[in-house]
Amino acid sequence: MPPWLEHFAVAVCAISGVLAAAGRGVDLFGVLVLALVTAVGGGTIRDVCLGAEPVFWIQNPSVTVTALLTALATFVVARFWRMPLRALLVADAVGLAMFTIVGAEKSLQYQESGIIAVILGVITGVAGGIIRDVLCRELPLVFRQETFLYATAATIGSVAYVLLYRFAPSVPMPGLIGMIVILLLRLAAIVWKWRLPVFDSRT
Amino acid sequence: MPPWLEHFAVAVCAISGVLAAAGRGVDLFGVLVLALVTAVGGGTIRDVCLGAEPVFWIQNPSVTVTALLTALATFVVARFWRMPLRALLVADAVGLAMFTIVGAEKSLQYQESGIIAVILGVITGVAGGIIRDVLCRELPLVFRQETFLYATAATIGSVAYVLLYRFAPSVPMPGLIGMIVILLLRLAAIVWKWRLPVFDSRT
Amino acid sequence: MPPWLEHFAVAVCAISGVLAAAGRGVDLFGVLVLALVTAVGGGTIRDVCLGAEPVFWIQNPSVTVTALLTALATFVVARFWRMPLRALLVADAVGLAMFTIVGAEKSLQYQESGIIAVILGVITGVAGGIIRDVLCRELPLVFRQETFLYATAATIGSVAYVLLYRFAPSVPMPGLIGMIVILLLRLAAIVWKWRLPVFDSRT
Repeated sequence: MPPWLEHFAVAVCAISGVLAAAGRGVDLFGVLVLALVTAVGGGTIRDVCLGAEPVFWIQNPSVTVTALLTALATFVVARFWRMPLRALLVADAVGLAMFTIVGAEKSLQYQESGIIAVILGVITGVAGGIIRDVLCRELPLVFRQETFLYATAATIGSVAYVLLYRFAPSVPMPGLIGMIVILLLRLAAIVWKWRLPVFDSRT
Repeated sequence: MPPWLEHFAVAVCAISGVLAAAGRGVDLFGVLVLALVTAVGGGTIRDVCLGAEPVFWIQNPSVTVTALLTALATFVVARFWRMPLRALLVADAVGLAMFTIVGAEKSLQYQESGIIAVILGVITGVAGGIIRDVLCRELPLVFRQETFLYATAATIGSVAYVLLYRFAPSVPMPGLIGMIVILLLRLAAIVWKWRLPVFDSRT
Repeated sequence: MPPWLEHFAVAVCAISGVLAAAGRGVDLFGVLVLALVTAVGGGTIRDVCLGAEPVFWIQNPSVTVTALLTALATFVVARFWRMPLRALLVADAVGLAMFTIVGAEKSLQYQESGIIAVILGVITGVAGGIIRDVLCRELPLVFRQETFLYATAATIGSVAYVLLYRFAPSVPMPGLIGMIVILLLRLAAIVWKWRLPVFDSRT
């Protein structure tokens, strides 16, 4: 994973954390927390569950600097300009793809089983956003149909990556393939409004 | 602890996670997350606080499979049949008893003090449900009187277990006794509507 | 850090956890959880991210006893007397100052970089309160302007401490200086109602 791509993904998550604060009376500190939590929350849970401590952002503090500077910049810029929401959706899909596969890769490096790699990949990809939504008192976006296969794309790409890695060692760059699967699925789901069924009960 | 009992307890927690999603517009992915979090959330916090990493469900991934399959089955079944809520309450009390004592036992194995064993036992028993309720934007059920001594039963049974273990080594199977205490207290509290006092302040 | 000061800070946090329960129908167990989470939540996240496990309250269970006894006493007392809210604000500022600097100190002991020491210091100081507010379904107090530089005071004092520690080794007791900075800033912010700007966006 080239470092600039990691910083790009962190920055995108940070922006999504800041924008979630809109209209809630959140001050500058709250915005910084939301940015940081969205960017590093998923990977932190992954590392803590694996026992890979100190967690990644302590081992590599530059990602926290990227997240905080991006949040500061967004805090200022969003006052004066409309944010390019469509471009952000695409950037966010890139971030989701990257975080998910990085999470699955790290689990495999720790010799964990395939199902754990998939679960920790998805946690890395989506848990930061869940914490962001909990802090903003929203039902997590990834639990809602309108989000169009966000976590589902992460799951499918993660499964594809793990299967290729385990059973098709001759295929080059399984991680890149997994990322492309997530990215294409997510973008297709946005364009054609693909949804998962909603839970419905008789009780 | 027989493995089938652990899988039973995990399945019961997973069902309670799914049912909490009712009427909230949560999609299939959200249901799976709620099920998993309810089933393994408490034990994860326990392991992470103890330093027992990788956490139990990474060491034993079959519990995540049980939780996910149970959630899928409940997702389908709850559309067509009324869930047997009374039977589930009893099953849930079994799960509470089991998780709590398993959590206290694990702490004692790590040579922690009695009070820590009680606290980690209760965390193992109730924290998954607290996270479930936070994700669903509800005041945690275990904080409410109407829940009838849920956490209190866990606390008392956990104290009984630790006391027997420490001061009455001749008594056989203290863990089983602790579980029975929790189960009976919880069921009695449901039947006779026992409650804890609510916090009330003058400020 | 003298132990009585640590217990004092834990007790103050526990009281703030209990008072957050007012008017929400939270029962005695919920009050104990809120007290414990507010008192030890921030330090737990710090220890888990650092890999300093078992976490501090397992290594030193007496702080949990202090938190639980304080919560019980508050539960009883708050029914009959008005709580001295002003005195509590000052006590809470002392607790914030202490927890923050203790958190930053511990990070430096683990050889982490300055920015990580500041971040973990602030987490130690404010994260317990954030979890308390999430459990009570409130927007975290520290994200709101009306809280008057709570986290900002922690950040500035934490930065002052780390800078002195790193670049001015001849200055005695940098930790005490950092605490005084936090305490004075926080109290001044309350008196003169200093605020951070709120996030505002055009989207």
